[in-house]
Order: sequence, then C-alpha cells, then structure tokens
Amino acid sequence: MAAGVSVALVGAGPGDPDLLTLKAARLLATAEVVVHDALVGEGVLDLIPASAERIDVGKRPGRSTPQEMISALLVELGRQGRRVVRLKGGDPFVFGRGGEEAAALADAGVPFEVVPGITSSVAAPAAAGIPVTHRGVSAAFTVVTGHRRAGEPDVDWRSLAKVGGTVVVLMGVSQRATIAAELIAGGLAATTPVAVVESATTEAQVVGRWTLADLGDADVHSPAVIVIGAVAAFEFVDLPLPAMSEATR
Amino acid sequence: MAAGVSVALVGAGPGDPDLLTLKAARLLATAEVVVHDALVGEGVLDLIPASAERIDVGKRPGRSTPQEMISALLVELGRQGRRVVRLKGGDPFVFGRGGEEAAALADAGVPFEVVPGITSSVAAPAAAGIPVTHRGVSAAFTVVTGHRRAGEPDVDWRSLAKVGGTVVVLMGVSQRATIAAELIAGGLAATTPVAVVESATTEAQVVGRWTLADLGDADVHSPAVIVIGAVAAFEFVDLPLPAMSEATR
Repeated sequence: MAAGVSVALVGAGPGDPDLLTLKAARLLATAEVVVHDALVGEGVLDLIPASAERIDVGKRPGRSTPQEMISALLVELGRQGRRVVRLKGGDPFVFGRGGEEAAALADAGVPFEVVPGITSSVAAPAAAGIPVTHRGVSAAFTVVTGHRRAGEPDVDWRSLAKVGGTVVVLMGVSQRATIAAELIAGGLAATTPVAVVESATTEAQVVGRWTLADLGDADVHSPAVIVIGAVAAFEFVDLPLPAMSEATR
Repeated sequence: MAAGVSVALVGAGPGDPDLLTLKAARLLATAEVVVHDALVGEGVLDLIPASAERIDVGKRPGRSTPQEMISALLVELGRQGRRVVRLKGGDPFVFGRGGEEAAALADAGVPFEVVPGITSSVAAPAAAGIPVTHRGVSAAFTVVTGHRRAGEPDVDWRSLAKVGGTVVVLMGVSQRATIAAELIAGGLAATTPVAVVESATTEAQVVGRWTLADLGDADVHSPAVIVIGAVAAFEFVDLPLPAMSEATR
C-alpha cells in the first residue's frame, strides 16, 4: 500500500484468482482487514491471509448491508489506521459502487487508493471465445446493468439498439425478457445473437447461445453476463477475417 | 502456460506494470518470444526476460506491420512450439484486434489462450478520479474507438448521445472535433463535461477537463482516453452521494 494510504478499493476480477493484478495480490497478502462482496470469487477469497479480519458485506436477496453502512464501515476502519482492502468483484467502478465509497472516504479525509480489476464485462465474453469488439463486426461496446434501482438514471435501450455495437448486460438475468423486448423495439433484429456466460472464468462456467427473441425464455442463472450482438455468435475459430486486399489496414 | 498451449494473447493493462495480472506476469517471465505493440507500457516491457526474443510490431505513423503479417508471425512462432506471448496494451479484445489473431491461430490449429488485461477504458478514468458508472449519475458506459478504418462498421454517434450513459473514446484525439460535433448534434449538451486522460497510470499521466463544446480546440496528445458525460466533471471528493433516505438501496 502506498505510504499514508489506509484503505484500498480493489477490483478482484471476474473469478479466477490468476486474473488478480499484481497490486491486488500484494495488498491482499498484507491486509489486516478485508471487506468483501458476494461477487468475489471463492479462489480469490482463499488468498485472504488467516491473520486478516474478514468482513462479508455481500448483498444477497433478503440479507444485505446498506451501502451507507459499508461506506461508514470503511471510514471507521480507515480511521483506525488499519490496512484495509475493500475487495469487489470485477472492477470497483463498473457497477461496483466504488465511487460512493471513494467519495465517502474522501469526504472523511481518509487516505485511500483505487486498484482497477479485470471487468467481467470484457473477460466473461472472452472466456466464451467472444471479443466485444472485432474488426468489421463491432466498433463499440456498451456495458449496462439490468438491475434497476429507484433513483437510477434511465438507459434508453431503444437508442442503444441503434448505436451499432455490442451490448453487454451485467446483473440482467431477471430483466432479460424486458431488455430483449426493448432492444427489439429499438430496431435490433429478433435474430440478433446472444450469449450468456454464467460464473465466467471459474470451474462452474457455463455458456449458452440464444437469439434476442428467445432470451426471455432462456434457462439461465445468475451471476451471468449477457452479450448481445453479432460477436455473440462467434467462437474464435469462426470469427470472420477481413479480406486480405483491404488497403487501409 | 497451460499444457499444450504455445501462444498466449495477453493484455498488458493501461501502463503501470503493477496492473498486470498474475497470469500475465508469470507468462511473461517464462516467455521465449514476446511480440508486442506500441501501446504496451515501458514498465511492462522492462519485465521481458533478457533471454526472450523481443519483436516490436507496434503500429506507428509511417511504420507499421500489417495485421495479417502479425497473425502469420504468431502462427509461425506457435508452430515452432516456442512459448510465445503476444502482448497488447490494455485488453486484447478492446480494440486490440485480438479476435483476428485468435481466429488465425484457431484456423491454423495452433493451441492458444487469451489472458484479459485491465482495459484503459475503465482504468484511465479511474486514475483521474472518475468512475465510469456512478449511482444516480451514469448507469451505462460505451467504449468506442475514434480511429475509423475503411470497412469498419459505423457507430451511430447521434443515437449514442441519447443512450444516457458515459462515453469513453479510445484513440480519438485526432477525431475529437468531429466526435464532439456528432454527439452535440445527437442531443448531448455543449456543456457536457469531458475529461482527457493522457498516458494514464504512468508517470507521464496528464488529466485535462473540458466541455464537449471546447473539446475540438483542446490541447491534448495521444495516447489519451476521452471521457464524456456527467461523471467526467468529478474527482472522488466531489462525487454526489444519494440521499440517505432512499429506501431501495
């Protein structure tokens, strides 16, 4: 941990502990307290030293720690001067509410740092052989959450359907039928390929392939990343290669 | 490297070698050949063992290795059974053309694996104190390249302006005036905050703050990540926190 820093907001990546960053692994190895989410992979949790206090604030149905309590906890632990790692699945700023925790720490004058993690929005498709961008197929990707909370700004799914890139939905399993309907209403073809990657990069990984029209009825389970767009049909071996004659490459 | 795998397509992250994954660092330490891009950070290149052959295929103005030659090189090296690391800035599948290389290796029957990297599209904003998503401010982010090549599918910037999330542009410095004009034409306010993060996570990092209206005239230099949207105005200390009374959090 950098001198004077007490709290590190650390991305744990998609699940595989081998996808931790060097910095995350080092911070974890020397942590005195680890405050973690439900989405952090078991293999990563196994790396928490036995000497460290471990606090599970994972949000689960029927049992959750309100965000302001988590932020207050981090401020309190930080003020004690302990080496605190706040471990989050994926990246802290990709729907990780890391911004709220960072703001609370900054407001309280507690020194902190942020350590990015591998986001599942890119790594889960990759683990299924799907590049979120691919020359001649997709020149953009949008990452969006399917989990709508009150007070959250709306995402205009119909405009998103017209952008022309890949759509990656995190935490979207329960809303998948509505999302598919909105994207189709916005102009995406009902036959648009969809891949659902469950428990990406872990031993429990399952990949299902569907179309936008049948996504609502697809038998899929959280945690899952939903990939929508032409790239979702591919595994590496059948990715299209641009013609060799193209001069501008 | 996994048994039987000869070529690893490895994300080098945004620049800071501490943001390499454990897997990437291990593969790099035991590589016999490293084929790298121009965008890989100097600190990461310093980790290449002296015993390894080092091949620079970086694309730079006036001097570039065509993509099909790179793919052919990887196939050839892989067929020799050498331990090859193909090192790419950021993540291999976020405008890294990793899909093309993966497809070429798969077509040739050369065993390979893909190791995700920390994408600059998330880590560069984070390094400037900007979360790409933030509760009550941004519930989506789109990553798009400003570098248009012939044969590339179009991105509908005007629809993108209506989605309602953060826009992150990679390789967009030269096209920044056009991009800003299109987003404004699509409905984004001319006063929309913009942050430009140059050489993110390295000692040369520079952060500039602008509005969409003045982005075209902004004095910025590649490599840079352009962040467009309400979050671009924030550093951690002034991020808005939702009201405490909100019941649904």
